[in-house]
This record gives sequence, C-alpha cells and structure tokens, in this order.
Amino acid sequence: MEKKIERLKKISGDIMLMQHTIAMLGWDQETYMPPAAIEERSEQLSLLETLLHQKSTDPEIGELLSGLGADENNPFGNSSLPQFDRALIRAFFRDYTKNTKLPTELVSKIAGQTSIAQNVWVKARGESDFSLFAPELKKLLTLIKEKANYLGYDDHPYDALLDEFEPEMKTARVKEVFEDARDKLADLVQRVADAPQVDDSMLRLNYPPQKQEAFGRLVLKDMGFDMMRGRLDKSAHPFTTTLGRDDVRLTARYKEDFFGTGLFGIIHEGGHGLYELGYSEDIRGTLLADAASLGIHESQSRTWENIIGRSYPFWQHYFPLLQKYFPENLQNIHVDDFYRAINKVQPSHIRIDADEVTYSLHIILRFELETKLITGSLEVDDIPEAWRDLSDTLLGIVPEKDADGALQDIHWSMGGIGYFPTYALGNFYSAQFFEAMKKQREMVENEIGEGKLEGIIAWLRDNIHQYGRALTAEQLCRQVTGESLNPHYYIEYLNDKYSAIYEL
Amino acid sequence: MEKKIERLKKISGDIMLMQHTIAMLGWDQETYMPPAAIEERSEQLSLLETLLHQKSTDPEIGELLSGLGADENNPFGNSSLPQFDRALIRAFFRDYTKNTKLPTELVSKIAGQTSIAQNVWVKARGESDFSLFAPELKKLLTLIKEKANYLGYDDHPYDALLDEFEPEMKTARVKEVFEDARDKLADLVQRVADAPQVDDSMLRLNYPPQKQEAFGRLVLKDMGFDMMRGRLDKSAHPFTTTLGRDDVRLTARYKEDFFGTGLFGIIHEGGHGLYELGYSEDIRGTLLADAASLGIHESQSRTWENIIGRSYPFWQHYFPLLQKYFPENLQNIHVDDFYRAINKVQPSHIRIDADEVTYSLHIILRFELETKLITGSLEVDDIPEAWRDLSDTLLGIVPEKDADGALQDIHWSMGGIGYFPTYALGNFYSAQFFEAMKKQREMVENEIGEGKLEGIIAWLRDNIHQYGRALTAEQLCRQVTGESLNPHYYIEYLNDKYSAIYEL
Repeated sequence: MEKKIERLKKISGDIMLMQHTIAMLGWDQETYMPPAAIEERSEQLSLLETLLHQKSTDPEIGELLSGLGADENNPFGNSSLPQFDRALIRAFFRDYTKNTKLPTELVSKIAGQTSIAQNVWVKARGESDFSLFAPELKKLLTLIKEKANYLGYDDHPYDALLDEFEPEMKTARVKEVFEDARDKLADLVQRVADAPQVDDSMLRLNYPPQKQEAFGRLVLKDMGFDMMRGRLDKSAHPFTTTLGRDDVRLTARYKEDFFGTGLFGIIHEGGHGLYELGYSEDIRGTLLADAASLGIHESQSRTWENIIGRSYPFWQHYFPLLQKYFPENLQNIHVDDFYRAINKVQPSHIRIDADEVTYSLHIILRFELETKLITGSLEVDDIPEAWRDLSDTLLGIVPEKDADGALQDIHWSMGGIGYFPTYALGNFYSAQFFEAMKKQREMVENEIGEGKLEGIIAWLRDNIHQYGRALTAEQLCRQVTGESLNPHYYIEYLNDKYSAIYEL
Repeated sequence: MEKKIERLKKISGDIMLMQHTIAMLGWDQETYMPPAAIEERSEQLSLLETLLHQKSTDPEIGELLSGLGADENNPFGNSSLPQFDRALIRAFFRDYTKNTKLPTELVSKIAGQTSIAQNVWVKARGESDFSLFAPELKKLLTLIKEKANYLGYDDHPYDALLDEFEPEMKTARVKEVFEDARDKLADLVQRVADAPQVDDSMLRLNYPPQKQEAFGRLVLKDMGFDMMRGRLDKSAHPFTTTLGRDDVRLTARYKEDFFGTGLFGIIHEGGHGLYELGYSEDIRGTLLADAASLGIHESQSRTWENIIGRSYPFWQHYFPLLQKYFPENLQNIHVDDFYRAINKVQPSHIRIDADEVTYSLHIILRFELETKLITGSLEVDDIPEAWRDLSDTLLGIVPEKDADGALQDIHWSMGGIGYFPTYALGNFYSAQFFEAMKKQREMVENEIGEGKLEGIIAWLRDNIHQYGRALTAEQLCRQVTGESLNPHYYIEYLNDKYSAIYEL
C-alpha cells in the first residue's frame, strides 16, 4: 500500500509540474511574448494540454486508486492511511473520475468551438452586436449540455458545470443563497441611490503608473507577499498564476487617470497570491496544493481588496504615505473623503468595474440567465432582452448596447458556464471568514490601523490557506466559522459600512 | 509513403514544440524567474526533457524511417521524394540513431554527474582551486568516454563528441585547420604586441545601461531584427534562445564602466537571432528549422559583431549617432580613435573577454587539451599545468590562478567536451562567407558606411539562414564559397585589418 501511495504521489507531482509549465506558457503569453508568437504558442499549449490529459487519465491511476480502496462510496480509500494521503486519494478520485468520463472527442470539439467562439465574441463585442455571437454560442451551448450529461448530476444539469469550479456546490444551494441576498442587496443599492453621492474626483486626476506600481509593491510587501517566491508584472487583464511551489505571479494594469484600478487590483491579486503561497508543507507539490474552490480563492482576494484594503483603518495607516507619493493630487484631501471616494457606490453596466455593493447583483443576473440557458427555458437569441430586464430589476439601469450588456464577459465564449457564481460566493465567504477572525482576534481593526498585518496574514494561512484542497469549501467554512455558507455576514458588513459612508 | 512523411512531419512538429517549451522554461529561469523557484524549475525541465526523449526515441520513428527507405547507406530515404522531405528524413535519421544509441541509464548518469560537477565547479572557481573540481571532472570524463563509445566513431573518439555540436566534422580536419591557423595567429599577436598600444580609455567611462540598451535597440532594428518576432532582455550571461517559429529572444548584460560589453554583445546575439528567424517557409516548424552546426551559428554572430560591427564603415555611420547618446564621453573623440579603441588587441586570460585576434587561440588551447583528455594522453590532474604551458606558447601570458585558467569556463562541468572548436570554426566561416558576399556584392562596405544593411541581411538569409539543417555545414560552405572551410580568409581579414590599426 505504501508503494502505491508513493507512486500516486509521483504521478501527482508530475501532473503539478505539467500544470505549472502550462501556466508558464500562459503567463508569458500575457506579459512578455512577442506578438507574432501567438500562433505557435497556441500549438504549444494544446500539445502540453494533451500530454497532461494523457497523464491525468492514465489507467494506472485507476488501478492505484482501487488498489488503495477508493470507490464511489469511499473516495478517501483505506481508512488506515494518514489523513493527507486520504485527502490526496479523494482529490485524485474526483479528478480521475471526471477526466475519464468525458470522451476525448467531446473535449476536443469543445476546445475547437471555444476557439472559434472567442474570436467571434471579440468581433461581436467590437461591433456590439449579440446576433453575431449567438450562432457560435448556440453550438457551444449544445456541447456544454452534452458535457453536463457525461459528467452526470442528480438534480440539475447546471450542478455538473458548477462543480467544475465550485466542487460539491449545488445549484439549489446557490439559488437559495442568491435569493436570500438578492433583495437585500438591491434594497441597499436603492437606499444608497437616494442618498447624496460621494465625490471621487480626487481619484480621477493624473496618477503616473510607475508611482502607482511603486506604492502597490509597498502594500504587497506589507501583505507578506514574498518577491523571492513571486513577481508583479503588467498585463491587459490582471491575473494571478502559479508557476511553481515557490513561484506565484501577479499582474496589474494601471489607468493613468483613475487611481482605483491599479492599487485595488494589486491588492486583489495579492490576496489570491497569498493563498497559493500558503499551502502547508504536507501538501506542497501534490494535487492538494490547489484552492478548495474558486469561491474560496475569491474570498481571499476580496478579503484583502475590500474588507481590508477598502477599510477605514487601512487608510488611516496608508493615506499619509499615499499623500507623499502623490502630493499634487492628495495633499489637501482629508482621509475621510478619500475613504468615501474609494467606496463610492454607483450601479453601472460593467461587472469588472462594479463596487462591492452592486458586484454580487451582476453575478446573480448571470446565474439566473445561465441556469435558464442550461435547462432550455431561455433561448440564446433572447439573452440580450432578458439581460436588460434583469439589469433593470436588480441594478435599476438598462444597458443601451450589447457590449455593455450580454457581450461584456469573455466567460461564455470560453465555455465557462458555471464559473460566475464563484465570484459572489467569494464575497459572501470573505465576510463570514472575517467575522470569525474578529471573534478570535478582537484587535484586528486596530492592527490594520497601525499597518501591522502579520497577525491577519498568519490567521488566514493557519485557518484557510494551508489546507488547499485537503478540505472542501463546505468543510473549510464549517471548520472556520462553525456554520455553512451564510450570506448574512456579507449583507451585514455592507449595511454597516455603507450606512456610515452614505449616512443612511 | 505520403502518409508516412506526413506523420513524420507531425512528430517533427511536436518535437519542435517541446523543444521550444523547454526553451521557454530556460529563458524565464535566466530573466524573470523569482529566486526561490529554481528548485521546482529544475524538476519541470527534467520532466519535459524526459517527455521529449520519449517522443524522440519512439520506435514509430524508426518504423517510419525504414518505411521511407532510410538506412545507414541512404539516410535520405527514397529518392523519389521532394528535396526538403529527404533532408528531413536525413535529420530524423541522424537524431533518432544518436538518441537510440545511448542507454537511458547512461544519459541519466551523465545528467546527474553534470549537476554535481557544475555545483562543484562554481565552488572551485570561487576558491580558484582546480583540485576541488578534478575528482568530479574525472568521473564525468569517464562517462563522456563511455558516451563516445556508444555513439561510435571511425577514427578518433573525439569525433563522436564533436559531432554533437558540429555535425559531420572530424577531429583530424579540425586539427589540420587549427594547425594551419595557430602560428599565423600567434605571429600576428606578437607583431601587435610589439607595436604601440591603442588608447581605449574613452570606452571606460560611465555609460548608463539604459542608454546603452536604447542604442543597442536602434542597431538591432537596423539589422532587421523584428521585435514582433523577438525580444531583448537582460541576463547575467548573454544568450539567444528560440521559443517558437516566430519567437527568438536575445539577452544582454551591460557594464556601467565599459562600453564594449553591452553593444557588441547585443550585435552578436542579434546575428544569432537573425539566423534563427531566417529559416525558409519550407522548413518552418520542422527539425530542419535549426542551425546547420554551432560553427555556422557562430559565424553569423561573429559576422555581425566583428566583421560588420567592429568595421570602420559601420562606425562612420553610427559614431555621430553614438556621440549624441553619450556626448559627455565622446563629443571630443575622433571616429578613427574610437574605431581603434573598439579593436584593441591584448592577450588576456579570460576567453569571453578576448578580442578577435586572440580569441581563436583560446579555442585552440582548449581543443588541444580536450583531445588529449579523451585519448588519455593528458590526466585531469595535469590540466592546470598544461594550460599554463599552452597559454604561454599561444598567448605569451601565464594565468596565476586556476580561476583565470582551467576553471574559467562552465563547458567541461556541463559535459560539453567537443563544443569549444565550434567558436573558432565560426570565426573562420564568418570571414570566408563575407569574402564570398563581397565578390557577389562589391558595394557591401559602402552600404555599411551608409547604414544600409538591407542588402547584407537579404544576402545572409538567401545564402545561409534559409537552409537551416537542410544542408550540412560543409555542403553550405561549398555552396556559398565554392570551397571547403579555409581559415586563410580569416587570417587575411585579421592581417589586413590589424596591419592598418597597429600600422604593422
């Protein structure tokens, strides 16, 4: 049995090495790759993905797993094995079962169709014409439904898709959580809209990108992001990617005429990065050295970006420093006004620019459309109209152009149906986790106000990061907070914060 | 047969994609990788090398090759096939035969021992103590001799090693060429040493690296190096690497207090880069899209660095521009003095800092030692003394420390015995090719003087670059110059140039 588990660990290690190599090719593509290299880069990625798929579906894995006593009823395998070995067996059992369920032909059909759909989506968004994109999305949707059938589900076909991104989460549970949050969020948005708007003009002055980056690096350092084990570069769309056990890279983009994009993007990606760098020694280099779910991943970025990074104590500490970086813009600004400005709430069309109050409503909109698309109760051609209706209901605004509505996100063109909910779940988890932290560490806000972040970093690592995939999101949430996912913490956090800011 | 050749091309394409992915990991390691990532990076490289080895030794290749009529007596396969297909079959036959001759166990033993030897070499060089390195070099040498036996040879065991870097070249031929050049070079060095030395103090002022880089980019652009298909970055040791059919990356290093290192390094790597970007459409993405030999590769870098980049016409054009970049250092300098300075000849210990007159003598020294080591007529322990003796004979100077002598190069610690000769062969080829170019294009020097490099670039591409591995170095040399490798062109080029500079 020991030999079998060693062999499984070796395969697990090779899979991680190949995933990291793929990440290397992807990182380079977004940062330094010369433009003409894109054609071959796609071929390199496709070959590596094929080799990884071969490795991940090698029948030897199935034999090892059953030899270790793992099956549908007992995915953890033999109960005499150490805890982390059993968690590894479970992760392998899950991945191997999923990977071997999908026919290679379907996988390659989906890859081909997403490649076409992405190109067409870029064009359609450019012309703001959803009808250009619709035929390709229809074809892709047919394949995605087929995929859901192969993966299997008990209750709802969307379950099979959601599970890719948020393992073990069910559609019914997301629906329940979203319905719970939806009206309360919409109500808060309405109350804010009725209050006098805050002034954020000081954020819309000239902020030289080099200085934004320098300040961002300073904050990253305080967050404990170790540049011996990572990097910060520029890219068109910010992201975090893991190229090795000790190699996690962040990217940022800077707007010269708006301060918010650069720094809060860096803090957000820094939160993701700390998670990836925080897996325990026990799981380093194995399949378990990965996020419990994308929702949990997002909870870490949102904790840092919003709960900490957009908090009043944070700017009590950092604002005097920021004033020194940008005296011409900020020397006569009071920290209270700056704090209000970076927390300005305003319903807008584009999700990635949304504030933390309206953000989850953008997600709820997409979730409602996606589940209907999968069950067939919404046709692709009717998406733009449904989008406008829901936007009106949830955000009180209606996009005039498809580019500001149903064509704004790349996700559908990539076949990533089931991905969106994880963003809102991340928001909800973040507040729930932070509340648990505050119960255990009452001085958290004082520490933030003094720029002492070590305690928070350590708490997050000890309570969340270290486990990686060894716990499911649900297990982790219960262990950390004593209860299942509960959106009330997030609603309460928003109500408290914005009641003060908007004097509601 | 058509199906077989198509299949061979597919495998060839996959091999190139994997080689380029390995190059990606290597490039990143030398440029942007965070320090702590090195441990896993070695594992990633090792896994990818293993996968590439598996792909390159797949018995399917052997079956395809023999199905296409290729064997020892006819490595080109069936004579009815198109020319480039036959060249591809020959390249595959060569690589596959070599790859399958070596037992996997020996390959991995050599990999292990080079890893140890490199570490020990770094330490030994740091302490300038050859006796620390000797035991590891002995072990490695035993394995390398074993490798030569597996690869096989008719005449000299060194043939088997040389062939790795300079395909089809024989030890006896190198010996003949080097003996021919050796005394003439040593004689020129002596005559220069007896003449008044030139003053290069204007190169040893403060040259801010950023400006050096900017000027280097300008020259690279004029050389036709396309930044849509390549990059220039910084690294500790300059190199050129190919990451894709349209992705060739150069690196440079800059010395703040010496102008020569940065720019001539960039021009050198640019010459390599143009070769890699110049393969014809017919061979793109196949095994043939590679250098005919390292000697031919080096001929391209040396042509640009020395024959063009250190020529008088080149600086007639560029010196006024360079003066604008560094007026504080150069505004009162005459172009004639600058030209003499960048061509200063002075025997020195370190090969990579050597001028173009002494450089080949450094190589001849190493070749003489290497061939003796392989036949056993020189013992590892006796290397430092043999080095000092030969250095005295060839260069007229004796290194006081092993760090300036037998420990200066990394090559032996990497098992790269047989590599050094290619540097000198490159010098010789460069002058022979350039002479052929001048016969066909009499205005070459005028063009250089006017900064019009397009004609030269086109000639090199049409006559050399486009063929890649489709011709051997010998075939290429005969096709371009009408004769076999002949060092007299290089000797004559040096005699003419330095007789003028040193008024001999």
